[in-house]
Amino acid sequence: MELALKHLDTHFKAFVEDLATFVAFPSVSTDPDYEESLTLCRLFLEEHLRQLGLSAHVLETGGIPALFAEAPGPTDAPTVLIYGHYDVQPARLEDGWDSDPFTLTEADGRWFARGVSDNKGPAMALIKAVECCLEGEGLPVGVKFLIEGEEEIASKNLEGCLVRHKELLRADSALISDSMWVAPGTPSLCYALRGIVYAYITVAGPAVDLHSGVHGGVVANPHVRLSHLLATIANPDGSVAIEGFYDQVRPLSEAEREQFAQVPLDVAAYRERLGVESLLVEDKVEVLARRWAEPTFEVHGITGGYTGPGAKTIVPAFAEAKVSMRLVPDQEPEVLIAALVDHVARHCPEATIQLDSAAPPFVAETTGPHYQAARNAMRIGFDADPLLIREGGSIPAALLLKEHLDTPVVLIPICAADDNPHSPNEKFEAAHFEGGIRTFIAYLHELASTIRV
Amino acid sequence: MELALKHLDTHFKAFVEDLATFVAFPSVSTDPDYEESLTLCRLFLEEHLRQLGLSAHVLETGGIPALFAEAPGPTDAPTVLIYGHYDVQPARLEDGWDSDPFTLTEADGRWFARGVSDNKGPAMALIKAVECCLEGEGLPVGVKFLIEGEEEIASKNLEGCLVRHKELLRADSALISDSMWVAPGTPSLCYALRGIVYAYITVAGPAVDLHSGVHGGVVANPHVRLSHLLATIANPDGSVAIEGFYDQVRPLSEAEREQFAQVPLDVAAYRERLGVESLLVEDKVEVLARRWAEPTFEVHGITGGYTGPGAKTIVPAFAEAKVSMRLVPDQEPEVLIAALVDHVARHCPEATIQLDSAAPPFVAETTGPHYQAARNAMRIGFDADPLLIREGGSIPAALLLKEHLDTPVVLIPICAADDNPHSPNEKFEAAHFEGGIRTFIAYLHELASTIRV
Repeated sequence: MELALKHLDTHFKAFVEDLATFVAFPSVSTDPDYEESLTLCRLFLEEHLRQLGLSAHVLETGGIPALFAEAPGPTDAPTVLIYGHYDVQPARLEDGWDSDPFTLTEADGRWFARGVSDNKGPAMALIKAVECCLEGEGLPVGVKFLIEGEEEIASKNLEGCLVRHKELLRADSALISDSMWVAPGTPSLCYALRGIVYAYITVAGPAVDLHSGVHGGVVANPHVRLSHLLATIANPDGSVAIEGFYDQVRPLSEAEREQFAQVPLDVAAYRERLGVESLLVEDKVEVLARRWAEPTFEVHGITGGYTGPGAKTIVPAFAEAKVSMRLVPDQEPEVLIAALVDHVARHCPEATIQLDSAAPPFVAETTGPHYQAARNAMRIGFDADPLLIREGGSIPAALLLKEHLDTPVVLIPICAADDNPHSPNEKFEAAHFEGGIRTFIAYLHELASTIRV
Repeated sequence: MELALKHLDTHFKAFVEDLATFVAFPSVSTDPDYEESLTLCRLFLEEHLRQLGLSAHVLETGGIPALFAEAPGPTDAPTVLIYGHYDVQPARLEDGWDSDPFTLTEADGRWFARGVSDNKGPAMALIKAVECCLEGEGLPVGVKFLIEGEEEIASKNLEGCLVRHKELLRADSALISDSMWVAPGTPSLCYALRGIVYAYITVAGPAVDLHSGVHGGVVANPHVRLSHLLATIANPDGSVAIEGFYDQVRPLSEAEREQFAQVPLDVAAYRERLGVESLLVEDKVEVLARRWAEPTFEVHGITGGYTGPGAKTIVPAFAEAKVSMRLVPDQEPEVLIAALVDHVARHCPEATIQLDSAAPPFVAETTGPHYQAARNAMRIGFDADPLLIREGGSIPAALLLKEHLDTPVVLIPICAADDNPHSPNEKFEAAHFEGGIRTFIAYLHELASTIRV
């Protein structure tokens, strides 16, 4: 793989330019206004992959289309399915960004842009690793790319897509790089993810917003009702009061607790970075357990009534909370959805729930050849033994690929712990891009040398 | 006043055109983006009053300027200070309007537009009444107009303006037409208003919105904290749990209860009009008592986190509720503000409160010559004896004019009970415009014939 690594060294500047083009598309999937940007972003990727010598074409999903591309490897070499996504979370300069969120802005080897770490940087690193192999010694394994446009809306149509295109997507293993290291300078391999249930809880009020001076006192205020309901669900200490909520939670093993204890997380520095005066727990293992191995109920935003600048005096026509539950092994989305629906029916019969999406938690087998290949690759890419970690986020694709394509799924994160995905000033580091490409080149070669089909 | 009434008959169509011009300015005072529209609206009014023969000029207030205009009456005739406001509540077509909110749209003798009833229609009716007198037999009394641009933001700078311009604004009584009849077809004279305290309650969270997958579980969710706090303040039955909240409430007298009993309010029809399945109380006198003589706590909107379309998974950086308390005699704003601050400090020490504005409740003396003049005028304007009513809304000007100019204040509403101020499809009726102008012409003549100075 020497020639491949040499191509990386000599073409890195051009790779960065391609990443800059990629992040310039505001490919926001959560807001229908960005449909055209999503299309343009996908067309850019498709053309880019074709120029590298892959065959590429759109995959209709019923929602925002995905992109498929492939290039064959040597006979009897395995094929790896590489997953990524080209859609991003919303971002507006006024949310607190220091630079335009859709312009790659460099400062001290760090690049700022929406999606640059989640997931355009890692996706581009995977593409560039394949480019390096093609321009070097040739691909050591067959590769297929599945780059979807609905990850930020919970991969709504991915399952149907996998079922429909099972033959096309068939591979010997899958590779996902869509998460972060556990701490700065600590290469990490991820083996477990939380699942998610996202829903909207709505309390209806009068037909239209009413003058609260004229009518206030005789009409129930939907925001007040919703506040009472949310207060029965979530406790201020972060625990959840839904009956049976914790019943299916698999207790953390002593072995995993010991593993968590080895994570070089400085809780005080972490707290400071988040900008809070106190965390809900302060012990390191507890912090990691809460983030990785315990379920949550979060309120993401509340709509209804007047939310513009200044004062307006109305009784709102409705109040709606965007909420999610994060699930851990062995919680099942259907069970938790039923528990939430039941809780709401008992505590606020006038409220309605609309389900947005659901994905179960994920745990990988870490003792086989695939995670061993990943370990070796990270040593080459980042010059250090990776730590085995869990992740608090959800990647629906991880579980879906495992189930529907019946392959091992390997999660190799290359983002730094403070890359701020979903937040203002999301970033990605030059060293991670470069080390990531090197890691992926090495991983493809490791797979070729240990797995024969 | 025959010639005056004749001028009304012959010029009514032109009056409507002037009203159409007036409502076409989106003079929204709650949002700083509309500053230019407010200025243009005030300039239009100023020019319009000058063309009618009044001397008119801007009154600086420290905030959005007010407009002053005057015309002298006969020697020894009293002078009446006419109050109105040219600012309006926000309105967007997508809030549920059937027509552009800033285009006067007619259907069956009803005009739809933001501000057409609150307060541009009544303000224009007052101006046109003065025009009719000037074009008819001449003004029977001296008139001064004070038309402010900050009523919808609680008349923040009106008190300072009244203090500064006390001499200029001196009058023998004040007239306000900025509220509604109690029921369709029931001319009403208003003698009491609720006061208001408007505030923002904020719970701070992390420095920026955080990925709730990555960090969820260790950071307190500001929306959850805020929900718990709001649930301790406001009960689902509409009552308020702040300690001492009801201590200063003057019990409703039996006489007033009997007066309420005479109001022709069809509770079932009212409930249907509001579009709710049930009201918090269903007895007519209780409904009116709740709206007119009891205090409230309302939540108008909640900001913080993600409120755009679709799903976004973050722990919000903050949660903020826009809230108000409506006050009734003899509640004092300072006392209620202190009670709210104290309650929040005890139940959610991490929350902060920012006061937007405050105005005490108002009660007028209804037995003197001014309300008698108003009664007689309404009989002439609308061919019926007016009902004496209270109002649930707040007009800070009522109390401020009474206190600072030391004059009787008379409230003559001309809007219909279903004019939907502050709501989508706000309307004003042609018959009310015409009857209102007639009423005001009559009122000025009644004042001239009963009061000598």
